[in-house]
Amino acid sequence: MFFTLNTSAIVGTILVKLKGFQKLTLTDQALQTWFNTLQIDKPKTVSVPLQEALGRILAKDLIAQEDLPRFDKSAVDGYAVRAADLVGASQFKPVILQLTQDQQVNTKQARQIWTGNPIPKGGDAVVMLENTKKRNTELEVWTQLAPGDNISKQGEDIQKGTIALRAGIRLNPYHLGLAAAQGCTQLTVTEKPKIAILATGNEIAELGTERSPNQIYDSNKTIIKAMLDELGAQTNDLGIAKDNTQEIAQKIQNALKTNDIIVTTGGTSVGGLDLVPDAINMLGKPGIVVHGVALRPAMPTALATLEGKPVLILSGNPVAAIVGFEVFGRPLICKMLGMPKEEPRPMVKATLTRRVTSALGRKTYVRVHVSLKNNEFVAEPVSTKGSGSISTMTQSNGYLIVPENREGISEGESVIVHMFSSLEDKTYV
Amino acid sequence: MFFTLNTSAIVGTILVKLKGFQKLTLTDQALQTWFNTLQIDKPKTVSVPLQEALGRILAKDLIAQEDLPRFDKSAVDGYAVRAADLVGASQFKPVILQLTQDQQVNTKQARQIWTGNPIPKGGDAVVMLENTKKRNTELEVWTQLAPGDNISKQGEDIQKGTIALRAGIRLNPYHLGLAAAQGCTQLTVTEKPKIAILATGNEIAELGTERSPNQIYDSNKTIIKAMLDELGAQTNDLGIAKDNTQEIAQKIQNALKTNDIIVTTGGTSVGGLDLVPDAINMLGKPGIVVHGVALRPAMPTALATLEGKPVLILSGNPVAAIVGFEVFGRPLICKMLGMPKEEPRPMVKATLTRRVTSALGRKTYVRVHVSLKNNEFVAEPVSTKGSGSISTMTQSNGYLIVPENREGISEGESVIVHMFSSLEDKTYV
Repeated sequence: MFFTLNTSAIVGTILVKLKGFQKLTLTDQALQTWFNTLQIDKPKTVSVPLQEALGRILAKDLIAQEDLPRFDKSAVDGYAVRAADLVGASQFKPVILQLTQDQQVNTKQARQIWTGNPIPKGGDAVVMLENTKKRNTELEVWTQLAPGDNISKQGEDIQKGTIALRAGIRLNPYHLGLAAAQGCTQLTVTEKPKIAILATGNEIAELGTERSPNQIYDSNKTIIKAMLDELGAQTNDLGIAKDNTQEIAQKIQNALKTNDIIVTTGGTSVGGLDLVPDAINMLGKPGIVVHGVALRPAMPTALATLEGKPVLILSGNPVAAIVGFEVFGRPLICKMLGMPKEEPRPMVKATLTRRVTSALGRKTYVRVHVSLKNNEFVAEPVSTKGSGSISTMTQSNGYLIVPENREGISEGESVIVHMFSSLEDKTYV
Repeated sequence: MFFTLNTSAIVGTILVKLKGFQKLTLTDQALQTWFNTLQIDKPKTVSVPLQEALGRILAKDLIAQEDLPRFDKSAVDGYAVRAADLVGASQFKPVILQLTQDQQVNTKQARQIWTGNPIPKGGDAVVMLENTKKRNTELEVWTQLAPGDNISKQGEDIQKGTIALRAGIRLNPYHLGLAAAQGCTQLTVTEKPKIAILATGNEIAELGTERSPNQIYDSNKTIIKAMLDELGAQTNDLGIAKDNTQEIAQKIQNALKTNDIIVTTGGTSVGGLDLVPDAINMLGKPGIVVHGVALRPAMPTALATLEGKPVLILSGNPVAAIVGFEVFGRPLICKMLGMPKEEPRPMVKATLTRRVTSALGRKTYVRVHVSLKNNEFVAEPVSTKGSGSISTMTQSNGYLIVPENREGISEGESVIVHMFSSLEDKTYV
């Protein structure tokens, strides 16, 4: 019913309800319109132990408190020496140095040193073990060196006072390692935004409950919760509301008190009625700011603002809900997490194995399975038959986006695929 | 001291200690040799609530318990009809049907239906709302249909009795969605392997403690723990052992009682002494099976087996520890998690912006920063100066592997980069 070509033929009340869809909003414009109505504060921050910071978003630049390395240290196993003593040294003309145990290396002296040890005073280079021969208290050296050879200089990795880690990054194991090397035991990260998820629909039954023969189990809340878990948000399950505007409005109103974002699924076009949009518009201004987007699937997605907070109204069709969340939910969550811009999924450029079609004027998300064959990445579109089926997601590992100004993509074209699962991951159905 | 070109020049005790390195083992062969000595049982399994299964590895095939959809359902908002009644219908020659509220659609009848509703008995197609006009108890229909039009057939997504999800996959949000649609409230996943991590070295201080001027804070345990967290393993921190063979052996022996894998860092070549390998060889057979690999960085990595369990002995240099874990730890953990093969990192093919060099005969891991410029992926090598520096990891988002049979890669060549961080993620230092 979103293909409003024959709107003149549609009865009155439906016509009114369809108004929003007579013009579909482009996704970029929809997002911009929505963001303009939101009051998104700078994210709150929280200090967490370093070991628990993996995957969190760094809230403020981490300034190096000390040089790294904190002292000049040996990069090899060998002997600390003075380079000037070794001028002309070779295997044919070794230089003889006196071995010392002191913390100071004087002229014509050498002190044994292992990788990572501080360079003793007076030393300015390290000769590698294999370029020497120890003879009692003397050392034969067969190579000449420049000052600084085989030394990791103080501050060469990170200099005190510089930015070691920049605010807004998602902390990976190596970021944590750098923080540890700086002696950090805690990191300041952004608080997880709180997101309430409400499913709607008389036909939907809660997982783990009895259901009637006409009902199906809700899968949308499971999917959206997991997508939010992956991003690092905190979720609250609001359960399932019946197709009843009052009930939906009540649940959303309550949830607004303790959550930063509300996400709903279904009821954006139930039997020609926009129950969730109607419920939201009852609750305050501006309410619904976009309804109906030039996106396939996920055309009936609506975007709303209540009390300055975002409400994302997703389709009840699981694949449309996923794509709607991908297009509008992800950038929102990234923003609320304090990331400078939307975090891209891993991408790969691949050759399309089969033509895909799309409608001009709609951004189209095509599920594909990417694999590496003979050192070339190929993207196989997952059957569009039953494109509303969740199995099209489990058989794919990524999607490609056909932009609004294209009608499909030809076989053999090079496409950028956004990966959501591993290259090897394939669920055969 | 691993460049054993001048071994004849090295004094006796060191020569003995260097034995293992006079021949470096190729990484593939090293991994095979190690795996051959291990007794890795099929992973134990555990049933977890669906909502907690994200990122876990499915332990056994999930067989569909019912068709999905479980009944023929409408794919659109409209009216359930019998296709045979509509032969010849058009806007110029509408067919008139009688509206019914019954659960049965008889000849010349139509029943209103919304997306997702079961098709009432007798109906075999759904006419879309916009191709109809309701007139009191009658419906004008302006289009003809084939049987099955606008119906999602029972089992079209998943058929009962078929494999819905295959064992060994890492569960993503869409896998969970499919399981939810099947009514699953629990999933059987593999147990997380237990991995003990021990740092060694007199020069290493525990994070959060006082340290002497010659000591540095341990970062390796933090990094390895986080890399294991990412893979979905369980970690136990064994703290730091001094450079003392007895102490190291004691800690490893204790840890073997309650852990599946031991990972150590440092002490694989401390001052020419292989403290950790020596400690391991004291504890039983076969002990060390590989010591010294044709890998850069991470050449001093050692692989051992005690009581049939793997012991991974990583370098004390953080970047070498990371690469050693990447090459030997990841495939091991994937195997113990019950994955059919090593889970690849996201990959991207990119154009190298600058020549990189490597030594023939060594597999070389080069850190690069990949970005998308004018729709092309480019990989910028991160300065090799201070290649042991952790900042080379935080400034990169992936690595490329120069194989053993190549001496570097030229500027402008196309390379496959294994990504460990987001395309946007860049820490400016």
